[in-house]
Amino acid sequence: MALIHHPVLSKNGEVIASAVTNLDLHDIARTARTYGVKGFFVVTPLEDQQTLVGRILAHWTEGEGARYNPKRGEALALIDVQANFSDVCRAIGDREACRPQVVATSARIAAGTVSYPRLRDMVARGDPYVLAFGTAWGLAEDFIEAADHVLDPIGGQRGYNHLAVRSAAAIVLDRLVGNLKENKPVSVQK
Amino acid sequence: MALIHHPVLSKNGEVIASAVTNLDLHDIARTARTYGVKGFFVVTPLEDQQTLVGRILAHWTEGEGARYNPKRGEALALIDVQANFSDVCRAIGDREACRPQVVATSARIAAGTVSYPRLRDMVARGDPYVLAFGTAWGLAEDFIEAADHVLDPIGGQRGYNHLAVRSAAAIVLDRLVGNLKENKPVSVQK
Repeated sequence: MALIHHPVLSKNGEVIASAVTNLDLHDIARTARTYGVKGFFVVTPLEDQQTLVGRILAHWTEGEGARYNPKRGEALALIDVQANFSDVCRAIGDREACRPQVVATSARIAAGTVSYPRLRDMVARGDPYVLAFGTAWGLAEDFIEAADHVLDPIGGQRGYNHLAVRSAAAIVLDRLVGNLKENKPVSVQK
Repeated sequence: MALIHHPVLSKNGEVIASAVTNLDLHDIARTARTYGVKGFFVVTPLEDQQTLVGRILAHWTEGEGARYNPKRGEALALIDVQANFSDVCRAIGDREACRPQVVATSARIAAGTVSYPRLRDMVARGDPYVLAFGTAWGLAEDFIEAADHVLDPIGGQRGYNHLAVRSAAAIVLDRLVGNLKENKPVSVQK
C-alpha cells in the first residue's frame, strides 16, 4: 500500500503536497498488518514531513511507545517513507524481483475501472501490486492516468461519497483480501 | 450505531470511561452517512466530554466548519450525545416505535457470535438494530453479556487483531450493508 501526499488535490482542485496526519499512519498500518500487507509506503516530498514520520516511527518501534504498546510498533514497522512514488515502485521491485502493478483508488466514478471481485482474483495470483490512496481531496488526475488499474469507487447507498482515507483503506483491503469465508455462514442467536 | 466510552476496558482490563477522540467522531460519522445509518450515538457519562462533543458538532454543523466543508456537517449531524447506553436504546425506541436489538462488537473470539451474512439478512428485514463499538481496549464484558447479539470478530490473516475502532466500524458496515452487487462483476483492464 502507498499513502500519497503528493500529487494530490486540494479542496479547490489544485495539485498540492498535503501534510502528514498522525492517525493515518497508525490506522492504516494497523489495517495493513491485520490483512497481511507486506509494506506501507508513506510518500511525501517534503523533508520536514519525512522527518516527522521518522520521529513517530522511532517512538513506537524503539522508544517509549514500543514499551507501552508493542503491538502498535509491530504495525508501524511496516512503514517506509519515500519522497516519490517512483521510488516506491523501485523499492517493491527490488524486494519482489518484479515491478508491481499500480492500482489507483478514487472516489470518482470513471470508465474502465476494475471491480473488487476481479482485482481480488488478480491479486490472489501472487504477482506484486501496490494500492495507492490519496490524502486531502484525492489522487491527482495525472497519477490516476499513469496507473495500471483504477479501482471502482467504494460507493454508498445514498450518494454521500466522503469517506476518510483511513476508512476507505480498511474497506478496500477487506474487500480485496479479507477472508470472508472464515466467517461462519450460520450461527446461534443469543 | 453507538460509540461507547463507558463501560470499556483499559489496557489492563479495568472498566473505565475513555476520553472522546475527535477523529472517531469525524471518521465514523462519515462512514455512517455513506452507508445510510440513521443515527450515530456517542456515549459518555463525563460531562466535560459531552460538552467537548457539543462544541465539535456546533463548529461543523453551524459554525466556521459548516461554511468550510458542508459535507462534513452533513455527516456529523448524525451524532447524538448520550450519557449512557440505556438512553440510546430509549431514543431509538422513540424514533422507531420499537426497541432496537443490540449488537455488540468485539475483537475477541467467543462462542455463539453471529456471522456477517446472518446479521446482514436480519438487518435487511427492517427492524431496528443498534451496533455498539467500544473505544479504548473494547467493550466491557458486562456490556457484551447484556447484548442481544455479539458479532463475529473481523479477524485477519495473520493473527494480528488490533484494528482502530474507526477502521473496524468501516469494515463492519461494509460487510453488513455495503452494496457489493453494485460493483461490476467484470471490468476492462486499462
